Amino acid sequence: MNSFRRLNPSICYPIILSIVSLKSLEKNISYNDSEGNTKTKELKIYTEKEVSAHTTKETGVWVIFDDNVYDITKFIPNHPGGPDKIKLASGKNVEPYWSIYPQHYNSTLPKELLEKMKIGRLHEDDILRNKSKNNELKKNDPYSNDPIISPLLNVHSAKPINAEAPGVLLTDNWITPDDTWFVRNHHPVPINIDENNYKITLSGNGIKTPIEFTLNDLKTNYKPTKIVSTLQCGGNRRDEMNKFGVTSGTAWDISAISTAEWTGVRLYDIMKSIGISYDEDFLEENNITDVQFIASEGMEASVSSKKALSKNGDVILAYEMNGKPIPHSHGYPLRAIVPGHVGVRNVKWLSQIVLSNEESKGPWQRSMAYKGFGPSIKSIESIDVEKIPSLQEQPVQSAITYPSKNHKVIKNNNEKIVGYAYSGGGRGIIRVDVSIDGGNNWVTAKLKEGSEQPLDKAWAWTFWEANIKIPDNVDNVEIICKATDASYNVQPDSVKGIWNLRGINNNAWHRVNVNVTEEEDEDEEE
Amino acid sequence: MNSFRRLNPSICYPIILSIVSLKSLEKNISYNDSEGNTKTKELKIYTEKEVSAHTTKETGVWVIFDDNVYDITKFIPNHPGGPDKIKLASGKNVEPYWSIYPQHYNSTLPKELLEKMKIGRLHEDDILRNKSKNNELKKNDPYSNDPIISPLLNVHSAKPINAEAPGVLLTDNWITPDDTWFVRNHHPVPINIDENNYKITLSGNGIKTPIEFTLNDLKTNYKPTKIVSTLQCGGNRRDEMNKFGVTSGTAWDISAISTAEWTGVRLYDIMKSIGISYDEDFLEENNITDVQFIASEGMEASVSSKKALSKNGDVILAYEMNGKPIPHSHGYPLRAIVPGHVGVRNVKWLSQIVLSNEESKGPWQRSMAYKGFGPSIKSIESIDVEKIPSLQEQPVQSAITYPSKNHKVIKNNNEKIVGYAYSGGGRGIIRVDVSIDGGNNWVTAKLKEGSEQPLDKAWAWTFWEANIKIPDNVDNVEIICKATDASYNVQPDSVKGIWNLRGINNNAWHRVNVNVTEEEDEDEEE
Repeated sequence: MNSFRRLNPSICYPIILSIVSLKSLEKNISYNDSEGNTKTKELKIYTEKEVSAHTTKETGVWVIFDDNVYDITKFIPNHPGGPDKIKLASGKNVEPYWSIYPQHYNSTLPKELLEKMKIGRLHEDDILRNKSKNNELKKNDPYSNDPIISPLLNVHSAKPINAEAPGVLLTDNWITPDDTWFVRNHHPVPINIDENNYKITLSGNGIKTPIEFTLNDLKTNYKPTKIVSTLQCGGNRRDEMNKFGVTSGTAWDISAISTAEWTGVRLYDIMKSIGISYDEDFLEENNITDVQFIASEGMEASVSSKKALSKNGDVILAYEMNGKPIPHSHGYPLRAIVPGHVGVRNVKWLSQIVLSNEESKGPWQRSMAYKGFGPSIKSIESIDVEKIPSLQEQPVQSAITYPSKNHKVIKNNNEKIVGYAYSGGGRGIIRVDVSIDGGNNWVTAKLKEGSEQPLDKAWAWTFWEANIKIPDNVDNVEIICKATDASYNVQPDSVKGIWNLRGINNNAWHRVNVNVTEEEDEDEEE
Repeated sequence: MNSFRRLNPSICYPIILSIVSLKSLEKNISYNDSEGNTKTKELKIYTEKEVSAHTTKETGVWVIFDDNVYDITKFIPNHPGGPDKIKLASGKNVEPYWSIYPQHYNSTLPKELLEKMKIGRLHEDDILRNKSKNNELKKNDPYSNDPIISPLLNVHSAKPINAEAPGVLLTDNWITPDDTWFVRNHHPVPINIDENNYKITLSGNGIKTPIEFTLNDLKTNYKPTKIVSTLQCGGNRRDEMNKFGVTSGTAWDISAISTAEWTGVRLYDIMKSIGISYDEDFLEENNITDVQFIASEGMEASVSSKKALSKNGDVILAYEMNGKPIPHSHGYPLRAIVPGHVGVRNVKWLSQIVLSNEESKGPWQRSMAYKGFGPSIKSIESIDVEKIPSLQEQPVQSAITYPSKNHKVIKNNNEKIVGYAYSGGGRGIIRVDVSIDGGNNWVTAKLKEGSEQPLDKAWAWTFWEANIKIPDNVDNVEIICKATDASYNVQPDSVKGIWNLRGINNNAWHRVNVNVTEEEDEDEEE
């Protein structure tokens, strides 16, 4: 069944129908016939809590859809999108997952298959509670208006929201769907915004009187520019660093990184229209070294004027994410996009831009939050944090999204290894290597989506795939990946040289330890 | 005596005079008094070959100066510049070394000290042979006109010249003296050049008729621009890579890297004067993606037009190196300086510039010479070399220049560790870490010369120094260094992930294994 895992679902459904639903499913699971009357009589009532306890083969794997409860245990190995994907919804509502895989709605087959697996209905209390979830939020909580987070995300902290998708979902779409975009906020999300009255102010060195633009000014007076850019949190993969020594900050796995197509106005175009050039002499004469971005909620960060003001830098003020208004969590109605720079410099809810001769004063610029100390620094007291450069461009990075540590690989199989790679500063990925013997031998991966970007302007990640023959004499293998970027920088072998108190910039070789089995699970043999 | 090693010689000579020359040297070595008559009588005649056999304490350490022979064995521990430096001249002529340490000529003391150690005179045949060295070169050899190479350099190949200084000399001067500049040529050096008739031609896309400039045009019609830039060969530190698996190419140690202040004309200024802009739209309209540099001896290489034509790129056509005409070996009378890019793109003996929509066709651009393959590639036949990006910006690099493997360190001593660090693309060095326990614990080095460069335009290397306490329970230590650049890229731990068939881009942690002794050599105790 392994070959099914990544087949196009639209091709697979008819196969599934013939192999699966007409054989095993019909025999083992009671279901309603087309007359309908038996439906309510046979169904039991389950609470959400009861459903959430059914996540294994032993207990049965249950899911919720349209307030009904289904036992999908025997269907799992036959899921056209692969058993791993469907298992993510174990004990939960499948609808958030279906919304990012719309093929489930493009055909009646998924619902028909599901209908045969129905075992009950959700308790009325749970149904009501879900419907009134918004009303339940505490009125005095500054976070009470925060948008409801996609249930696909693993939440590291709710206030402010810090959440990431399971790694295995990450490489399904080169442009990350909203529902699996990582969310990393520093404050409550500004929610009461009147787009028609939203203004952004430009001020500082070289600008005599502050200039205001409405959102409409930006949309109508300037040519829209579209940039596909990957944003990565400085703390992506921090969790692995914690295993070497405790750091501070959110224990991100590998998914604090996502990609969107942003639409907005090039900062270069705006500046040109008000007489600000990015010529070195002009910047020097006017004492403009840094461009500060200030958000309506208090967040602020800055980047160099050379990056922000040059045309090549591709910095835009974005009002759309993937062709739609930017979601509130991601900066509605306007955010800075600074391609090739760490996520935090892409300031959301942008309300002011200041041309300055110094960096932003906020803690996310000058304090320890986004500064990489040496591995010998065990206490913040021992160093002068201001002297350490703030994180801007990030080092070359890659990670394995499939298999994850929860997967198994098969002896003698050619297993497909999948992942992403990215480097800061627009440096394209020129190669990804994969090893299963500790790095003594390597297989060069095939570069996929993203590999056509220019090597000096690769603002987005590159996906890759490798086939590795699993040996027959081991019980587990450690799969390793590492990327090389256009400046031939590579990821370091281990965390021990890059560990730092803040746990940022973990770009050590990514290692995933998976069990090796004789053959597919018995589940998957059926 | 350890504290003497790096003291300013001008401070030390008087101390030496009182401690050394008036005590031990006078007792043990016969020398001439000021009356002079005894001189020729007491001196023996030695051949160069005989002198070259005297390089150890056991045989005595002999050197040549002004055609005389000296036994400096007992003076070595008292050498103000440190015993390691003076040992470099063992069995050889000291004059090339003195010429890069001109303090030897600023006082009569060095010659006075030497006079007391005189033991003989060089054989007349050797004197004559040295004087007529130029005449001896074979007339039909295309390399017969190549400039005589500095005797300080270790020669990897003579035709063409590939040579580097001993690592220990490298960090004595942030601006590398001509005599220790590495030489990496691909062909015979063009030597018969008439500067007054020298022309450079600009042609290609966007230029209707080729334009010629004389050297004088460049010097008089444009503002001179000075850029301090480090050039590093793509194969620097290849020798270490060979230990992991045989590569092809010159087995460079750590010194295929040097720094100069270059004076010339910004290519941006020249292009502006003939109507060529570096605006993206202009380059696209005129189909200019690459700028090709062609040398008079046939070498050619190219870089992206964004780099070559922008003002920020700081690309210059240089006619001076350290305030003097560029030496023949380094590109007289004109070479391209492409700061932040690998040495080979800084084309010497520049005679043509072509604006193009493709890379140079030469082997140093498109063939395997400067391309980094994956570690799995063991044969050139297995890959499509053209698809692999040519090396332009190099990855972050650092190396230990002192101590070298020939040095000893002392138990319980705080030993000074010295080295250089550099990264491509102008990315400044933000930290160097040093370890003597395999990378489990690190000491942050002090950044020295070069550390004041802007972090996004650090075209030159950064020197560093760390003090490490040597433990008292070991017989040897492996000293490791690694650098972090402004994009937080770091060097990989080992060669095994970066080994490649061509042996380029070795930037693994630099490791030097040194012996640990109880105390100074007996030599150094005297």
